[in-house]
Amino acid sequence: MLDEYRSRASFCTKRMRNIFDDEESQAYRAKVWSVLGSKPIFRQPRFPISVHEYKHLTYMRCKELIKANLLSDDEMFENPRLKIVLEQCLSMYDSSCHAKYTLSMTVFRETIRTLGTERHEYILNLDQNHQIFGCFALTELAHGSNTKEMRTKATYDPSAQEFVLNTPDIEGMKFWVGNLGYQATHAVVYAQLYTQNTCYGLHPFVVPIRDPLTYRTFPGVEAGDIGAKCGWNGIDNGFLLFRNYRIPRENLLNKHGDVLPDGTYKTKFKTSNKRFGASLGALSSGRVGISSLAIGSLINCCTIAIRYSCVRKQFGPTSGVEIPVIEYQTQNWRLIPILASLYVFRTLALSVFDNLAEFYALAMSRDESDQDLLADMGRELHALACTCKAMCTWNTQKACQECREACGGHGYLYASGFGTIRNDNDPACTFEGDNNVLLQQASNYLLSTCEEFFSSNTPVYSPFGSVVFIQQMKTVLQNNRCSITPECDIKDLMNAVEWLLCYILDKSVRKVNQLSLRGNLSAFDLKNAAQVYHLRTLSLIYIQRTAIVRFSNYIENNEEMDEKCKKVLNKLLLVHILKFLEENLNYLFEGNYFTNGSVNLWMQNRLIDLCAELKNEAAALVDVFAPPDHILNSVLGVADGKVYEAINKVIHANEHTFITPSWIKEDLIERSKL
Amino acid sequence: MLDEYRSRASFCTKRMRNIFDDEESQAYRAKVWSVLGSKPIFRQPRFPISVHEYKHLTYMRCKELIKANLLSDDEMFENPRLKIVLEQCLSMYDSSCHAKYTLSMTVFRETIRTLGTERHEYILNLDQNHQIFGCFALTELAHGSNTKEMRTKATYDPSAQEFVLNTPDIEGMKFWVGNLGYQATHAVVYAQLYTQNTCYGLHPFVVPIRDPLTYRTFPGVEAGDIGAKCGWNGIDNGFLLFRNYRIPRENLLNKHGDVLPDGTYKTKFKTSNKRFGASLGALSSGRVGISSLAIGSLINCCTIAIRYSCVRKQFGPTSGVEIPVIEYQTQNWRLIPILASLYVFRTLALSVFDNLAEFYALAMSRDESDQDLLADMGRELHALACTCKAMCTWNTQKACQECREACGGHGYLYASGFGTIRNDNDPACTFEGDNNVLLQQASNYLLSTCEEFFSSNTPVYSPFGSVVFIQQMKTVLQNNRCSITPECDIKDLMNAVEWLLCYILDKSVRKVNQLSLRGNLSAFDLKNAAQVYHLRTLSLIYIQRTAIVRFSNYIENNEEMDEKCKKVLNKLLLVHILKFLEENLNYLFEGNYFTNGSVNLWMQNRLIDLCAELKNEAAALVDVFAPPDHILNSVLGVADGKVYEAINKVIHANEHTFITPSWIKEDLIERSKL
Repeated sequence: MLDEYRSRASFCTKRMRNIFDDEESQAYRAKVWSVLGSKPIFRQPRFPISVHEYKHLTYMRCKELIKANLLSDDEMFENPRLKIVLEQCLSMYDSSCHAKYTLSMTVFRETIRTLGTERHEYILNLDQNHQIFGCFALTELAHGSNTKEMRTKATYDPSAQEFVLNTPDIEGMKFWVGNLGYQATHAVVYAQLYTQNTCYGLHPFVVPIRDPLTYRTFPGVEAGDIGAKCGWNGIDNGFLLFRNYRIPRENLLNKHGDVLPDGTYKTKFKTSNKRFGASLGALSSGRVGISSLAIGSLINCCTIAIRYSCVRKQFGPTSGVEIPVIEYQTQNWRLIPILASLYVFRTLALSVFDNLAEFYALAMSRDESDQDLLADMGRELHALACTCKAMCTWNTQKACQECREACGGHGYLYASGFGTIRNDNDPACTFEGDNNVLLQQASNYLLSTCEEFFSSNTPVYSPFGSVVFIQQMKTVLQNNRCSITPECDIKDLMNAVEWLLCYILDKSVRKVNQLSLRGNLSAFDLKNAAQVYHLRTLSLIYIQRTAIVRFSNYIENNEEMDEKCKKVLNKLLLVHILKFLEENLNYLFEGNYFTNGSVNLWMQNRLIDLCAELKNEAAALVDVFAPPDHILNSVLGVADGKVYEAINKVIHANEHTFITPSWIKEDLIERSKL
Repeated sequence: MLDEYRSRASFCTKRMRNIFDDEESQAYRAKVWSVLGSKPIFRQPRFPISVHEYKHLTYMRCKELIKANLLSDDEMFENPRLKIVLEQCLSMYDSSCHAKYTLSMTVFRETIRTLGTERHEYILNLDQNHQIFGCFALTELAHGSNTKEMRTKATYDPSAQEFVLNTPDIEGMKFWVGNLGYQATHAVVYAQLYTQNTCYGLHPFVVPIRDPLTYRTFPGVEAGDIGAKCGWNGIDNGFLLFRNYRIPRENLLNKHGDVLPDGTYKTKFKTSNKRFGASLGALSSGRVGISSLAIGSLINCCTIAIRYSCVRKQFGPTSGVEIPVIEYQTQNWRLIPILASLYVFRTLALSVFDNLAEFYALAMSRDESDQDLLADMGRELHALACTCKAMCTWNTQKACQECREACGGHGYLYASGFGTIRNDNDPACTFEGDNNVLLQQASNYLLSTCEEFFSSNTPVYSPFGSVVFIQQMKTVLQNNRCSITPECDIKDLMNAVEWLLCYILDKSVRKVNQLSLRGNLSAFDLKNAAQVYHLRTLSLIYIQRTAIVRFSNYIENNEEMDEKCKKVLNKLLLVHILKFLEENLNYLFEGNYFTNGSVNLWMQNRLIDLCAELKNEAAALVDVFAPPDHILNSVLGVADGKVYEAINKVIHANEHTFITPSWIKEDLIERSKL
């Protein structure tokens, strides 16, 4: 039946693939997947292995991957997208393997490169020669989002020209540090810098943790593994405490601030806030990467659920004849919008990655005249990355659950893959910034950009185009009238999206102004009191609207696009917008954009019709991005559609299937004695 | 901080507990929990154990529980609620342990009692003496919901007076059967009965699978364990195939249909449909039980998330002073509605259990005159149980995820408990009826009850009161006008709920009529085309409205209720209704019940204010139902609020925390050779 559904598609899968991926990326992706299919160590266990075995396996796999030299620095500079292709491929294969590889190859190294100076080059050399292993230690047991209140202390002792590291109590222990559990010998540690009896705020230090020759922790250091998590168990996340542990003065990563031998503190930044911002800037690119991992997981769960729904039959109009479950209205209404979100958000995440690349390109080649542009880019990029990460990870988390349920009981088999996808995507909603906290970052940006525009009367500076709309805000709110009819053209729906974003921004500004008129609220309390239904919603609508506009442009600006592909892509976009508007209908009514209740009915009918039409495109639409079977690793998502055979095979490959366990045997012996 | 929040509550926790639980239930609950705290075997591992170890542990625990004789038949008949208290307690402790216990003590036994006759009593005796172990085999690899199309065959051979069992292909293998993987020696197997060249449909047989003395499967039987799942791994779910396997004629469970020695088929039912319905009736009570398990999981995740949110501090209005995260508008707006749903749905689930008990009481004492009443009860109970199960399991599944995220990174620790709760509640959305399929059952009932009323002009027969509203439907739709103001009284909101249910039922009836006017749709296609935004929504609104009305009555009809408790309960009800209306606002606008957009703003403000007020009641509100620490088993939910100490303790109790793994040692040796 799967091939039957494939053949119903109105477009050519290969052409569609070419729209979304250049040849080089496709070839590179195929190469990575072939490496992952080449050695027995990469074979996926179809049964859960213990936390300890998994860590071992991940360590060995990571060594193999490093040997395989998948992406040289030159290749990456030539085509930065390859890095994100690599990371997505690895995480679609196995999150822990991807994380260990990235932590080993990138995070520690990049931090030292960005925040260190010449005096730290020997560390980079040791790391590149695998004589030491690094990790990145920021989060503490009692502090995650609020980095400024971290408690680890580094007190400078001029007599020895050393920093003395201390963890004041268990709440101040470094926690969650990837690779620190067992493997890391060195850590970049963020600590409050004290010198000459003054605290200069959080600074990064490179700190030897374990002797690289014996793996014993040094005296004064306590480090170990934090134990099992709900996923990512191939990674050794660790904790770290210091007791009067001394490191040389030079171990301060001193790009943005330094302590002279006599203890004098020096920085080019005027406030510690600014220095702090600059030193943490490196974290932003992480969020763009995470969006792309979430897209990878979304590809996996869409592929599994849609293929299985084309194959699984249950009930039918006449007794004895059953139909594939994708034919059910409820089933395609549940799955098609998820598929649409894959197309829309995949495009969004890549576009934000391109913005990031543009930002870095300018940052590297900058002269003084570009400083303002760079600052504008940085602020907009920050808002885009924060909201894109939140939207993509949440969307995938919801999609995993829906797809699991859409596959019924068999979706609950370990070998279906859903458990792993859900458990591995979950922490992405929290790490590198809790999603709700990230939304606040973006709303701050939108509010201040809006205020600036209306108070200064200068154009909105929006290098990436996502906030230009503010200039037309008043006009849109005054003139935009709902033109939605039962036929729901994209243009009419886009107008509604545009109005919605303007409305919620305007509503938020009014709310904040109204709260500040009270006069008794601190800036903190004020923002807190305007979160729900205002600032939080604003950020979500902002990134949705950006995604919709960018996907629409992607379709429209591609002049060579195959007409058949275009038609299907426009339908996916329609589905996505309809779903989005449905979720925000209360605002459309609240602001009197919708005044006629029938609009809701028209939109519902249109969405149902589109889902029914697209069910025949769905199998081919997942084929566009689907990884090969050895990556997808799901009995329900096999490319040939023979799911029952795949399940049967897995059962028969398990050595525990036909045993009589020892504990039952013991009972038999006991009973036989009676 | 946790005690600080406890002391802020406006009511007495003990009094509140007495409102929701009689003394006997409380004492019994305490007894079960104390048994689970009494022996080392019941101690919870704080690190994941292997699938195999977990099965062993569950087996041993189950044996201990059976020995402990927690609930005698007499006690249960005396107070049927104790059974549901027992099940909820066990599943809050460990889902696998609960499932194995229930499967061993109830399912097989009850089925034989209900569907067998005198000739099967020896089986019950063997089972009760633990000489054999039973399981219940209905689901097949390719058929779950559509039981009628099951493929396992039982063909009667009059020459030997035996049934010959056959599994036609792998798609027909019995699958997911609990306890069958390793432990069961006997199964109730559902198979298509063939005799005299006629198929009489699905019938239950009791079938020996394994020799109870050797545990070898009998020749002609293939049975084994299906392997790992996404949770419930303490249970040995199995599969089962037959190849010309012969069982005596008497093994047919012949309460509703029998085959005489010569092969003649006999039944008191006129159609095989009716016989089938009667024989599966036993499944209904399972759904009521599952609702209560989902409530147990909801208690666990609310308790963890709310306690942790009272303790975890992050940021604050002034530098250096941090506030508990529950103070954040977003945080309490995320958690308080979940807490409200716990109170409302716990009451709903127990009320449906009471309906079930009433139904069984009548069924056992029935005389002919009660037949009609019993039928009405059965149909209404079916609708209530189906929707209650769907609503409770979905609500808990969403709540797990929200609570995990609300606890940030530490929520992702295995020792937080969230992973286990989420993974263990998940299959409840599917088993004993996929939630979406169950919703169809209820909408069928609502549609036909509605049609009957309007065509016959006789009163609606609604022994449990959930469909009496149909009689006032036209009046409500004509006269009910929105009276919601910024103060939002409960009465005004209840009116909106009432209108909403009538509106969606009326809309559904009109949709179905409109579709049937087309004339070319089968009954199957017709229902399928009216699912989304009609029948599916109808069932969800029906059960929400039932829950709201019953909770409101529970508060109002309890005349001795402490005023302080009552005030808080009314706030919880308000929160629940506001959340519910918010999710269905599009229908309220669509049907012109809301015509003023400001209603939305008023409701939003009211909800935010209520969540802020209730954050000070929350710690005490979870204490009302919270299990002791050894049951909750979460470092974040400890009753004393000392979460960081609890995390630190868990780490230091893990033997893998401070090791250097063998694979790293091997690398060291290799490197030292260089």
